[in-house]
Amino acid sequence: MTSFSFNSDNGAPVCPQVMQALNDCNTGIETAYGADRWTARLNPAYSEFFEREAFVFPVGTGTAGNGLALGAVTPSYGTIFCHRDAHVLTTEGGAPEFYSGGGRMSLLEGAHNKITAKTLKRALHDHGTGNVHHMQVSTVCLTQATEAGVTYSLEELAELSAITHNAGMKLHMDGARFANALVHLDATPAEMSWKAGVDVLTFGTTKNGTMNAEAVVTFDPEIAKVLGFMHKRAGHLSSKMRYMSAQLLSYLERDLWRKNSERANSNARRVAFALSQCSGVEITHPVHINEVFAILPPALSEGLRGSGMRLRPWAVDANGHGHRLVMSYCDDLAQIELLEKACQNYTSSNLGISA
Amino acid sequence: MTSFSFNSDNGAPVCPQVMQALNDCNTGIETAYGADRWTARLNPAYSEFFEREAFVFPVGTGTAGNGLALGAVTPSYGTIFCHRDAHVLTTEGGAPEFYSGGGRMSLLEGAHNKITAKTLKRALHDHGTGNVHHMQVSTVCLTQATEAGVTYSLEELAELSAITHNAGMKLHMDGARFANALVHLDATPAEMSWKAGVDVLTFGTTKNGTMNAEAVVTFDPEIAKVLGFMHKRAGHLSSKMRYMSAQLLSYLERDLWRKNSERANSNARRVAFALSQCSGVEITHPVHINEVFAILPPALSEGLRGSGMRLRPWAVDANGHGHRLVMSYCDDLAQIELLEKACQNYTSSNLGISA
Amino acid sequence: MTSFSFNSDNGAPVCPQVMQALNDCNTGIETAYGADRWTARLNPAYSEFFEREAFVFPVGTGTAGNGLALGAVTPSYGTIFCHRDAHVLTTEGGAPEFYSGGGRMSLLEGAHNKITAKTLKRALHDHGTGNVHHMQVSTVCLTQATEAGVTYSLEELAELSAITHNAGMKLHMDGARFANALVHLDATPAEMSWKAGVDVLTFGTTKNGTMNAEAVVTFDPEIAKVLGFMHKRAGHLSSKMRYMSAQLLSYLERDLWRKNSERANSNARRVAFALSQCSGVEITHPVHINEVFAILPPALSEGLRGSGMRLRPWAVDANGHGHRLVMSYCDDLAQIELLEKACQNYTSSNLGISA
Amino acid sequence: MTSFSFNSDNGAPVCPQVMQALNDCNTGIETAYGADRWTARLNPAYSEFFEREAFVFPVGTGTAGNGLALGAVTPSYGTIFCHRDAHVLTTEGGAPEFYSGGGRMSLLEGAHNKITAKTLKRALHDHGTGNVHHMQVSTVCLTQATEAGVTYSLEELAELSAITHNAGMKLHMDGARFANALVHLDATPAEMSWKAGVDVLTFGTTKNGTMNAEAVVTFDPEIAKVLGFMHKRAGHLSSKMRYMSAQLLSYLERDLWRKNSERANSNARRVAFALSQCSGVEITHPVHINEVFAILPPALSEGLRGSGMRLRPWAVDANGHGHRLVMSYCDDLAQIELLEKACQNYTSSNLGISA
Repeated sequence: MTSFSFNSDNGAPVCPQVMQALNDCNTGIETAYGADRWTARLNPAYSEFFEREAFVFPVGTGTAGNGLALGAVTPSYGTIFCHRDAHVLTTEGGAPEFYSGGGRMSLLEGAHNKITAKTLKRALHDHGTGNVHHMQVSTVCLTQATEAGVTYSLEELAELSAITHNAGMKLHMDGARFANALVHLDATPAEMSWKAGVDVLTFGTTKNGTMNAEAVVTFDPEIAKVLGFMHKRAGHLSSKMRYMSAQLLSYLERDLWRKNSERANSNARRVAFALSQCSGVEITHPVHINEVFAILPPALSEGLRGSGMRLRPWAVDANGHGHRLVMSYCDDLAQIELLEKACQNYTSSNLGISA
Repeated sequence: MTSFSFNSDNGAPVCPQVMQALNDCNTGIETAYGADRWTARLNPAYSEFFEREAFVFPVGTGTAGNGLALGAVTPSYGTIFCHRDAHVLTTEGGAPEFYSGGGRMSLLEGAHNKITAKTLKRALHDHGTGNVHHMQVSTVCLTQATEAGVTYSLEELAELSAITHNAGMKLHMDGARFANALVHLDATPAEMSWKAGVDVLTFGTTKNGTMNAEAVVTFDPEIAKVLGFMHKRAGHLSSKMRYMSAQLLSYLERDLWRKNSERANSNARRVAFALSQCSGVEITHPVHINEVFAILPPALSEGLRGSGMRLRPWAVDANGHGHRLVMSYCDDLAQIELLEKACQNYTSSNLGISA
Repeated sequence: MTSFSFNSDNGAPVCPQVMQALNDCNTGIETAYGADRWTARLNPAYSEFFEREAFVFPVGTGTAGNGLALGAVTPSYGTIFCHRDAHVLTTEGGAPEFYSGGGRMSLLEGAHNKITAKTLKRALHDHGTGNVHHMQVSTVCLTQATEAGVTYSLEELAELSAITHNAGMKLHMDGARFANALVHLDATPAEMSWKAGVDVLTFGTTKNGTMNAEAVVTFDPEIAKVLGFMHKRAGHLSSKMRYMSAQLLSYLERDLWRKNSERANSNARRVAFALSQCSGVEITHPVHINEVFAILPPALSEGLRGSGMRLRPWAVDANGHGHRLVMSYCDDLAQIELLEKACQNYTSSNLGISA
Repeated sequence: MTSFSFNSDNGAPVCPQVMQALNDCNTGIETAYGADRWTARLNPAYSEFFEREAFVFPVGTGTAGNGLALGAVTPSYGTIFCHRDAHVLTTEGGAPEFYSGGGRMSLLEGAHNKITAKTLKRALHDHGTGNVHHMQVSTVCLTQATEAGVTYSLEELAELSAITHNAGMKLHMDGARFANALVHLDATPAEMSWKAGVDVLTFGTTKNGTMNAEAVVTFDPEIAKVLGFMHKRAGHLSSKMRYMSAQLLSYLERDLWRKNSERANSNARRVAFALSQCSGVEITHPVHINEVFAILPPALSEGLRGSGMRLRPWAVDANGHGHRLVMSYCDDLAQIELLEKACQNYTSSNLGISA
C-alpha cells in the first residue's frame, strides 16, 4: 500500500512547465544580477498581468517576501496590524521585526483568520496616533487567502484598505496563495491588488508549482526604490537571476498560476465534499481555495490512515480531532479516490452496512 | 562573428550535473523546510568533506551568506575588520551592518586585497579594546581567494587566525571562490577552514556551477544555533529545501567543486600566459585561481575586441587600461583560442610581421 | 481656592536633600565620563546596599533603563514576556524592540498587572523553543511594584524566577517604584533582587525624589560588560557624570529611598482609607505602595473636584468612573486633609446630614 | 601647590546661573514628560534665537543628540559622510550605526578636521548613487567647531550644504561647541544653521555651563516628527522635563551661550599667545574657540607641570609632544597666569636669563 498525504503544498515538486523553463534558460553566458534577458521581461510581464506599472523583486521564500515588503513600508517605531494567527506572525521567525528594525506586531481577532473592519477600527481607536509614548500605527498586513483557506471578498478588501489609508497606513497583502484566491473570487489581479488598495504584495508562486520563487510586487515607485536597496542588502538579489525570472515568467506566461490553482482548488472541493458526507465531520472553515480544515471522528481518521494516508493534526478543537488537508496542482487523483473510498466505507459502516 | 566575454563566473549557466541533480530530485512529495531526504544528507556530507562535524545553512546568495555569518558572530557594537576592497564591504549593500544590527566595518590595506598580519596587528593596536567610547573589536573577515584572485597561504591563514583569536575575535572566511582556492593551494577543506582557525565560512558554489546556492558552514554548535534562528528570520530557509540541498550535495558528491575549479583555474593560466607574451601587458595580480587582472595596451585590447571579445574595464591604472577577465568551468575553448590568436596577431604586428 | 492633584509622582519636584547633593558637588573640575569622585563611590555604595557586587549604569529615564536592560539580555530573535498592561509595553515607545534590535513582546494576562506562574508556564508551553520558525523565549520582564500599585511577594518572585531560569531565560525587573515595594514588603534589597533571581534591574529613583536619575543594576559581570557598551552607544553615558552619581548616592546614603517611600506609601493608605469609607467607592487594586485606584461615584468625584482637586480618570470600568491617585514624598498634608474632608462631606450628605 | 588642568570643558562644574535656574524651578507639582511651564517656552525661545520655527528635543548627552539627529535623517542603508577624526565616529560607541539601524560612516580627510568641498565631491563621485549593490549616500555630518577647535566659515558651510543638498542628502551639524563657534565667527544662530543649509543640529550646551543638557534642533517639521518618536523610544524624553528645559532656557535667556563662550574663547587666545612666545612651540591648529593644540618642547611641558598643571598628551607628532588644552567659562584666571608665568620662565631660561 502506498503512503500518501495532503500535508502541504510546499511538499509538492516543481511543476513540469517550470522545470522546462529552467532547463530552457540554462544556456549561454548572461550578465549577472538581473541584467539578463529574462529579467528584462519581468517588470513588463507583471505590469501587463496587473494592468499597471509593477515593480517586481524576486525572492526565494515567503518569509523574505513578507519581511521585505513590511520593512519597506514600516518605520522602526511602527505598528503592524495582523491577524493573531497570521503566518507572518506565528511562523516566520520574527521577520517583520527584523526587516522593520524593531517594529511591533499588533494582533487582531477574527473568524477564519480574517481581520474585520470592526476589529481594525477598534484597534486603531485603542492605539491612538501621534503620541510619542506609543508605537505609531503604520501598516496593515492581511493574508489572501488566509491561513484558514478563506478569501477576503473584493468589498472586504476595499473597506479594509479605506480604513488603512484613512489612518495614514500602508496595506500589505501576504499572497502566499494569491493565485488560488484569484481563481476562487474570479477576480482580476488588478482588482485583488492595487484596485483594492494594496500598496505592496507578496505574490507567492512556490506553493503553486515553482522552485522557491516568490515576487514582491509594488505599484509605488517610492516603495520600489526602498525595496531595491533592502532586497540587495538582505541578500535576496540573485547573481544568476535568470533562474528566478524564468520561473516567474513561466508562471504568468504559461498561465500556470490559473491552471495549477484551478486544479488544487478543485481537488480541495472534492475532498471537502467527500468528508462532508461523513457523519460527525465538521468542516471548520469555508473551502475557498486548496485547503480543507475538518474535525474528523476518530473512526474516520483511522479509516483514512488505513487507506495509506498520513493525516496532519491541526489544533481546532479541545479533543484534538482537527486536521488540515492541503491540495496541490499535482495531487495524484488516485489518492483523492482512495480518500473518497475511505469516506464511503466509513459512512457505510456507520449505517451498519458492511463495506 | 560570435560575441563572447570573460566578464564573470556569475554569468555562466548551471553545469549539467547540477541541472541533472535538480531534475532528479523533482519527483514526489517531500516534507518542506528541510525535513526532506536530500537535506538529511547535507550535514553528513559536509562533515565528511571537512573532516569534522559541520553545520550547513543553504542560502541563495553570497551576500546573504556573508551577512548571516558576520551577523552571527558580531554584536551590534562590534567592529569587523576587512580589506578596503573586499566585496563584502564594497558591493553587498551594507549586509554586514544589517545583519549585525549596526556593526562597523574597519578597512585594512594590503596588496592583492590581502589583509596582512602587520596591518591587522596595527589596526588592533590603534583600535583598543574595552573602552566603552569605542566600538569593540569583534570579527575579522577575509576573502579566500581575494577579489584580486589571490589566495592566502595556509601559513598566512594560521598567522591571521592566531591574531584574531588572541584578540578574542572570530574569523570569518568569505569563500565565494573557496573551491578555486583549494585547488590552487592543493589543500584539504579542513586545512583551509577549521584547521586554519576559521570559525564560520561562506562556502560559495554559484560561481562554480550551481544555481544560486551557497552554504554557510560553521563547526561551532553555538554559532550554528544563532545561525539557525537568523537564517529563518531573514527569509533564507527554503520551503522546497530539497532543491537547495540536492545542488549542494551534487557539488561535493560528484566532485564538481574540484573538476569545475580545475577547469576554470587552468583556463585562467592559459589566458594569463597568452597575455603575458604580449609586449606592454602587465599582469597586475598573481594568477592563482580563475581570474586574470591585466593592463592591456590599447592596440591589444582593440585586437581582442576585434576577435569578438567583450572586455570589462577594471580600474587599476591611471590610464584606464586595466581589465578583469574571469574564467569559468564552462568556457568555450574556442574562445580561449580566439584570445590566444589575437595575442599572437598583436605580437606579430608589434614585431612588424603581418599576421 | 488652591488647585491640587495626585496625578503622578513624576510631577513632584526634586527633594531638598537631592538638590543639596547637586549643589554640593557643583564645585571644581572633575574628570568627565565617570572618572570623578562621586562615580567612584557608585558601585561600592550599591554593592553594599544589595549585599553583593553590583554594576550600576545611571540613565536619565525609566524607558532608557528598561530598554538597555532588556536589550542587554535579549537577542534580536528573542521573545520578552511581560504583562499586557506593563508600562514597558504600552508607554515606552517600543524601547524594548529598539534596544533588542527587533525582539518581540509577548503579552500575559493577570490580575493587578501581575504575571502569574500559571500564565507564564502556559505561555512558555504554547511558545515552544528551539524551532527556528518561531522567536526564541528569552526574557521575562516584571514590574515591581506593578502599574496597578501591587507588589509581587518574595515567594511569587522566587517561583517566577525559577520558571524563567529553567527555561533558559533571564529575569528583568522594572523597578520604577522599587523602593516603595521594598518598604511595603519590608524586604531587603538583596531579597527583592538577586536572591529572588533578578538578573538585571531598572532601579528607579526619579518618581521618589531625584532629578531624572535611574540606575540599571546587574550582578552579572557578563551582562555588565554588554550594558557598558550599549549604555555609551545609545547616548546615556553622561559627560558630567558627577551630577548623576551624586543623586544616586544621596538616594542611598541619606536613606531617601526609605524615607520618601514610607511617606508616599503612608499617604496612599490614608487616601485609600478615606475613600473606602464612602459608599459606592470601589478600591480596585490592593494599596501596597503609593498608588490608589478607585471607582468613584460621580457625586464623590464632583465633591473632590469642588475641593480644588484635579482628578485623573483611569479606565477601569465601563462607566468611566475609574481614577488613579498617586501620592509622593512631598504631598502637602493639607491637601490630603482636603480630600478627607471632601469624603466626609460626601458621606454625610449621603446619610442625609447637612455638612 | 594646587594642581590644575585644562583637560576638558566637560570637567567644569555647572555655571551658577544654570544652577540657579534649576533651584528656581524646583517647586510645586508640574505635569510630567514636557507638559510643564518651562518646556512650553522651549520651542518659542529657540525659534526666536534661530529666527525661524525650531523644534527642540532635549537630551542628556552629545552622543544621544548626534545619534538621534543622524538616525532621523539616515535610512538603514544610508551612508553618512564625516571627517576621519570626527568625535561622532571615533568616540561615540557607534551611535550613528545604532540610531540609523545599520548605516555606514564614510570617512573624509581634511586639515584641522574639516571636510572640504573637494573631498566631499570626490567621495560622492567615487560612491555613486542608485546602485543597489552599494549603500546610498544620505547624510553629511560636520562638527562646528571641529574637534581641532577650528570653525567652518559661513561660505564654507554654504558650499558644503549646496553639495549635500544637490546630492539629495541631509546636512547634520554636530554643534558640541556651537556657541563658541558663533562667537568666533560673530555670526547669528540663523546664519550658522538653517541659512547655511543645516537640516538638523546638535546644539551642545553641557561643555559651556549646563548640567548634561543638549538640544537636538531641526527646522523641518517632517524631521521633527521622526525625532519625536525616536527621542522617546530611545529613552531620552525626561519625565521631569522641567529640569532639562529650565537649563536650556537659561542658556539662551540669560545670554550664557555668549558670555561663557566669550570667556572660554578669550582664555584660549591668551593661553595660545603665551605658548606661541616660547621657542620650539608649534600651535598646530588655528585657535578659533576654546581649544589650543600645541607641540610643546619637553622643557616647557616640564615647566608647566612644575607649576602644578596637569597636561593632557594629544597625538599630533611622532615624538608624542602634542598636547590639547581646553579652556572653559570657569577657568581660574590665576591658573592662566601660572601658565603664562611658566612660559615666561621657559623663555627666560632658554635665553640664558635666570627666572
